[in-house]
Amino acid sequence: MADSLNCNLESLSPLQLFERVTEQGEKVRALKAGKAPKDEIDAAVRMLLSLKLSYKTTTGQDYQAGLPPKDLVLINNGTTKEEDEDLVDPWNVQTSNAKGVDYDKLIVRFGSSKIDTDLINRIERATGQKPHHFLRRGIFFSHRDMDQVLDAYENKKSFYLYTGRGPSSQAMHVGHLIPFMFTKWLQEVFDVPLVIQLTDDEKYLWKDMTVEKAYEYAKENAKDIIACGFDINKTFIFSDLDYLGASPGFYKNIVKVQKHVTFNQVKGIFGFTDSDCIGKISFPAIQAAPSFSSSFPQIFNGKENIQCLIPCAIDQDPYFRMTRDVAPRIGQPKPALLHSVFFPALQGAQTKMSASDPNSSIFLTDTPKQIKTKINKHAFSGGRDTIEEHRKYGGNCDVDVSFMYLTFFLEDDDRLEHLKQAYTSGELLTGELKKVLIETMQPLVAAHQERRKQVTDEVVKQFMTPRKLAFEF
Amino acid sequence: MADSLNCNLESLSPLQLFERVTEQGEKVRALKAGKAPKDEIDAAVRMLLSLKLSYKTTTGQDYQAGLPPKDLVLINNGTTKEEDEDLVDPWNVQTSNAKGVDYDKLIVRFGSSKIDTDLINRIERATGQKPHHFLRRGIFFSHRDMDQVLDAYENKKSFYLYTGRGPSSQAMHVGHLIPFMFTKWLQEVFDVPLVIQLTDDEKYLWKDMTVEKAYEYAKENAKDIIACGFDINKTFIFSDLDYLGASPGFYKNIVKVQKHVTFNQVKGIFGFTDSDCIGKISFPAIQAAPSFSSSFPQIFNGKENIQCLIPCAIDQDPYFRMTRDVAPRIGQPKPALLHSVFFPALQGAQTKMSASDPNSSIFLTDTPKQIKTKINKHAFSGGRDTIEEHRKYGGNCDVDVSFMYLTFFLEDDDRLEHLKQAYTSGELLTGELKKVLIETMQPLVAAHQERRKQVTDEVVKQFMTPRKLAFEF
Repeated sequence: MADSLNCNLESLSPLQLFERVTEQGEKVRALKAGKAPKDEIDAAVRMLLSLKLSYKTTTGQDYQAGLPPKDLVLINNGTTKEEDEDLVDPWNVQTSNAKGVDYDKLIVRFGSSKIDTDLINRIERATGQKPHHFLRRGIFFSHRDMDQVLDAYENKKSFYLYTGRGPSSQAMHVGHLIPFMFTKWLQEVFDVPLVIQLTDDEKYLWKDMTVEKAYEYAKENAKDIIACGFDINKTFIFSDLDYLGASPGFYKNIVKVQKHVTFNQVKGIFGFTDSDCIGKISFPAIQAAPSFSSSFPQIFNGKENIQCLIPCAIDQDPYFRMTRDVAPRIGQPKPALLHSVFFPALQGAQTKMSASDPNSSIFLTDTPKQIKTKINKHAFSGGRDTIEEHRKYGGNCDVDVSFMYLTFFLEDDDRLEHLKQAYTSGELLTGELKKVLIETMQPLVAAHQERRKQVTDEVVKQFMTPRKLAFEF
Repeated sequence: MADSLNCNLESLSPLQLFERVTEQGEKVRALKAGKAPKDEIDAAVRMLLSLKLSYKTTTGQDYQAGLPPKDLVLINNGTTKEEDEDLVDPWNVQTSNAKGVDYDKLIVRFGSSKIDTDLINRIERATGQKPHHFLRRGIFFSHRDMDQVLDAYENKKSFYLYTGRGPSSQAMHVGHLIPFMFTKWLQEVFDVPLVIQLTDDEKYLWKDMTVEKAYEYAKENAKDIIACGFDINKTFIFSDLDYLGASPGFYKNIVKVQKHVTFNQVKGIFGFTDSDCIGKISFPAIQAAPSFSSSFPQIFNGKENIQCLIPCAIDQDPYFRMTRDVAPRIGQPKPALLHSVFFPALQGAQTKMSASDPNSSIFLTDTPKQIKTKINKHAFSGGRDTIEEHRKYGGNCDVDVSFMYLTFFLEDDDRLEHLKQAYTSGELLTGELKKVLIETMQPLVAAHQERRKQVTDEVVKQFMTPRKLAFEF
């Protein structure tokens, strides 16, 4: 590992510089992890910043972990070192691996369980339905206590679903649909009620945004969620800013969680500091409380201790690890979880899509033309530099974002497998693969837009009104 | 100041030991205030604990700041050193001075303003009513922005009152009535609406108590508060556990306050630590929010930015210093305040009454006989040891708890002045003064009990129902 800046940085090639930055980043992480003296860490950080500056000057690109300088990508694909841990928390997803986060490692780190073939088969037996392709393809890949949910379900003891969204902007992107598409399927095949939390209070606390704007985004986002096709008789969508002041049970559960979690704990779980506002510090209890059916007395007719199952992206797991820790101490059942992988940015799987970068995402409001342009221009390719090389060596589906997107949105297993083989063998070119993705996404987004148009303010109001849901427990 | 334990503690008299503990306590405070090295502070604290142990072994009593060993009280009355600061926060009131907390010093420390004759005269002019004896006698002694409230009031711009109570037990004591008696008077003479917060969530968070029990106490306490005679058309009483889940405006204001206060700030103001639960850490925002009329859209018919005036004991001021700091940043007017002194414990003015020590208080549920016994047995006397000495030197009204209580509850100024002169001159004996107090408190408590009996659950429900209050702004 390079230890100093003594050698002349200008003499290094872009790749050497890239490796230097990567090594220095690892060194900083190691020093921090080893609780090295502050001045030592500071010096290492200063060197890291200096290296990043040199990298930018030399390559004209910002350093991105795991993304070597553009012309060198193929050399490094799949062989980049993975020694440093991926960063995964509710506000950051970052990995140095172009294939994306190492989910097997994450299961070990988070202490969850892998969704294996046995579990998928059990879900098929319990529901009598072919498992969703998100299950078959490992997009929902990890769980907590799903086996217990199935045990109870097989004994005619049902559950309810809880998922959510932080309404940080008016426009949602296709990645935001993943948990909702899967939740809709779960609602259908298990025939269970569902609550969807819109954490507008969280967005108000974290962003430079008014309470009114956050609430407005919540209602706009509700339309996109409703357009996924949820059953109005079995689905309650709520904004925190709204529902906290409208439910006799929600705040009681929040304050119970808040009594049983210390600042030390949220500091450890979420990385809060003394400079964070007290709203952020206490917010995790607000995301925890909907895991308990007593937060919804109107909806469950006062019935308490109904098992909760939470489908969500794995970055939300810290909230529910905390919730599961508190649950028995306040006399509530632990919620079970189903975790999904992240939806990758168009630019590559190192990070998840972000609504704040319009080019990282296909938005649900994009026109067919915008979709075509974005995919052609920005979708990170696993193909070779020239047609000749591509025909000879083939493309790499593991890092090709167009192929990744197709695993999410192309339901036809045979066709997906065929595309994989054709691309890997070099028979299918990047442009052709992108064309398949464009032809998949355009009608999907257009159909969503069509359904969303049907969602009137009146329908939103109905979904967001606390009322008894149809259920049998 | 004694500096070491080298001399033999056993050889010291109780008073000498008492002085040693007091000095050592001062030393610890000085070291802490001067941010001395941790080991130096630790050593001083160890010595303090050791001295306290010796004191207990020698005297058979726990050391109490400002309360010398029992047989030495008269020697020290009024002459105890006041160099160390009184401890005053929402959970602790402690002073070494038998006269009670030094309120003039507290005004300087807290940065509030003294309620002087000019202000009292202005209140008299504005209301056309004789000022309440709590004002005339300095029981409400400090304020923030009361002059601005009067400016506006004189220009036909009204305000609303906000006060509260933490329902830590079913039974309230007479000291708890002080803010309510005064608030009732304010409501009458200014003809303004009033909101009363019962912080049952706070009690749940701080005490070993269930949510249900805290809420039950809140409703029981509401009966005692209603029995003070508030106007049902102008008064809304609410439990946090209840109202937070019933108001569209309350939580929005809470989250706004929570966004603008950091953990560092509440650490500084309230002394929270990393081991405190996140509920405690975020609670100050819940006590802050009723200072803003938009927390009560039903009550004020959606009218926002109405000026708020908060009558409360001075120990609650930290909450409202924080509130006043945040208010302009969230576009709300700062609440004004009227601060009362503490109601002393029967045992002396070093600390306020506590509902958790039955002998420190006269409870609103006490029988005439219990009142008589408690006063005769526990009310700290400013009298002399023997009748002869008392006749010769007179009693000390500044430390006599019976006399202090009479300043709170005996409305007749002339009679109070007469009693003071007679006691100070030695003409009136302690037993006779206690008799006057007993004869004052017995009918007062009995009348309260009679009024409380009239307060049905239905009446409580009415007071606690969010509804439009009668007001003109």
